[in-house]
Amino acid sequence: MSAQVIDGRACARVLKESLSADVSCLREEGAAFGLATILVGDDYGSAAYERRLRRLADGLGVPYQPHPLPTGTSQDELIALVEVLNDDPAVSGILILRPLPAHIDEAAVFQAIDPRNDIEAVHPENAGLLALGVPRFVPSTAASVFHLLDTWLDLAGEDRADFYHRSLIVVVGRSNNVGKPAISLGYERQATVESIDEWADRTTGIGRHTRRADVLIVAAGKAGLIKAEHVSENAVVIDVGINPQTGPDGRVHMVGDVDYASVAPRVRAITPVPGGVGPVTDVWLMRNTVLAARLLAQHPAGDTSALPEPTDSLVEAS
Amino acid sequence: MSAQVIDGRACARVLKESLSADVSCLREEGAAFGLATILVGDDYGSAAYERRLRRLADGLGVPYQPHPLPTGTSQDELIALVEVLNDDPAVSGILILRPLPAHIDEAAVFQAIDPRNDIEAVHPENAGLLALGVPRFVPSTAASVFHLLDTWLDLAGEDRADFYHRSLIVVVGRSNNVGKPAISLGYERQATVESIDEWADRTTGIGRHTRRADVLIVAAGKAGLIKAEHVSENAVVIDVGINPQTGPDGRVHMVGDVDYASVAPRVRAITPVPGGVGPVTDVWLMRNTVLAARLLAQHPAGDTSALPEPTDSLVEAS
Repeated sequence: MSAQVIDGRACARVLKESLSADVSCLREEGAAFGLATILVGDDYGSAAYERRLRRLADGLGVPYQPHPLPTGTSQDELIALVEVLNDDPAVSGILILRPLPAHIDEAAVFQAIDPRNDIEAVHPENAGLLALGVPRFVPSTAASVFHLLDTWLDLAGEDRADFYHRSLIVVVGRSNNVGKPAISLGYERQATVESIDEWADRTTGIGRHTRRADVLIVAAGKAGLIKAEHVSENAVVIDVGINPQTGPDGRVHMVGDVDYASVAPRVRAITPVPGGVGPVTDVWLMRNTVLAARLLAQHPAGDTSALPEPTDSLVEAS
Repeated sequence: MSAQVIDGRACARVLKESLSADVSCLREEGAAFGLATILVGDDYGSAAYERRLRRLADGLGVPYQPHPLPTGTSQDELIALVEVLNDDPAVSGILILRPLPAHIDEAAVFQAIDPRNDIEAVHPENAGLLALGVPRFVPSTAASVFHLLDTWLDLAGEDRADFYHRSLIVVVGRSNNVGKPAISLGYERQATVESIDEWADRTTGIGRHTRRADVLIVAAGKAGLIKAEHVSENAVVIDVGINPQTGPDGRVHMVGDVDYASVAPRVRAITPVPGGVGPVTDVWLMRNTVLAARLLAQHPAGDTSALPEPTDSLVEAS
């Protein structure tokens, strides 16, 4: 029996429709909102991401300011731009595309973002709120992973709470931008969560861990890392990897961290690459931009008196 | 064969000697430093903790300001005191004892602490720096758990890095103050880390997870939760629980989350309760108070320009 394919594009379409309605509301209220991205240099993947966001913002009617900067931009110049965007009432969300050139200290730039505009939760305060279980923003990739899971559970007729309470979620990869936020969302759902990094792969092997997973989230950035022998028949597999690979025809295409051909026939459900997590992530970033506008309206500049309310309800809604 | 007993009191004594030397240095430099604690109400455990800290501060020559407040203290009054302590140059570390009375919003109080004085890392910024892998302060209980492990590995002749890379660390309990910081320290050591919360206990049972642990850290607050059938023979068990229990003689004594009598004969090594994690934690809080004074000297009030350097070296040193 072949696995159910979890269709990220279909999921993104539904999400986009509901977001479109939110955007109309914001416009009617006359609220200022918009996304600003900063791309330093000419990284191929980041430039492609920026083009996708531009098209999506266009389609949704979200005002979009792309800020391409030359590779030689200094850290001070970059931080100066971030500060201008912090103060721009037409910008509710700020995204700094990665990777930044080596001469720039990523952490210093992230800390310059006003936490209320920090839609990818890279500022320590937002990373902390997420770690403490009261997120202001949930980074879009991790949010999308769990939105896909939640949506699939609903379609499969599984009770979400009961499923998560009984499940072991294994997360392969422990990055600050994907792995750790995904782990936090697993905690929020009160699942048992296991985190594997590259060292398990180098020493004892990851199979003894991944084969136990009810849910396997793979965000290692390593093409074909997960093969048939790494999964059990009951697993739901979410593949976050996007790795460029040259096919036998000489053309470059994107493949995941999961060897889809060998894994898909074995497991219960799986996301494809492309067409899985990616499309949802793009929409989720726009969603966080709209959420930021709502939070800014509640807590205008200068008002740092209160912690934000937990955004669970927004995260959970479809 | 019986387990090796990991002696927290001996470990605390060594730590205290090296801290004592640090305190002398601070005094010679004429640096201002000190610990302030706030205890609202008359919680028995917190009051006992405060008395222990008072004795320890006395012995080490760390200036100590206890601030006992009546149960009826309002949130605004409590925050006003925190702000006074933030501005007091004689205070480098602030500890708010838990639990706070129900009418006080713990998160709002924690956010009022100047992050540079927040020695238990309860402010979102410090929780975030820890989650991102660049801690300013490591909460004392989690730091003590790994200090005991590191010290035991050295004594056992195990290579720390190799041991952690090959190990599965299972953490039972997922609180913001102990479980999650311990998980972050497991990540820092590049181990595989599994986090179990109460729901696994209520649904599928925790034994299928805990029996796999090379290192089992138990911080569930449930006396005798871990029994012989929950551990494997190779496990190193760190018991964070401190639960009051009335013995057959009618006297109250403290027991851990681990049923020591049945587990100790089965495992490789184990911490007792009392005399395990507790004594090290008390000293570590003083150590963070001294660390805070060092950081304040590097980043005086008003200077929020830079992220602190990672404190790994301080955390790792014995």
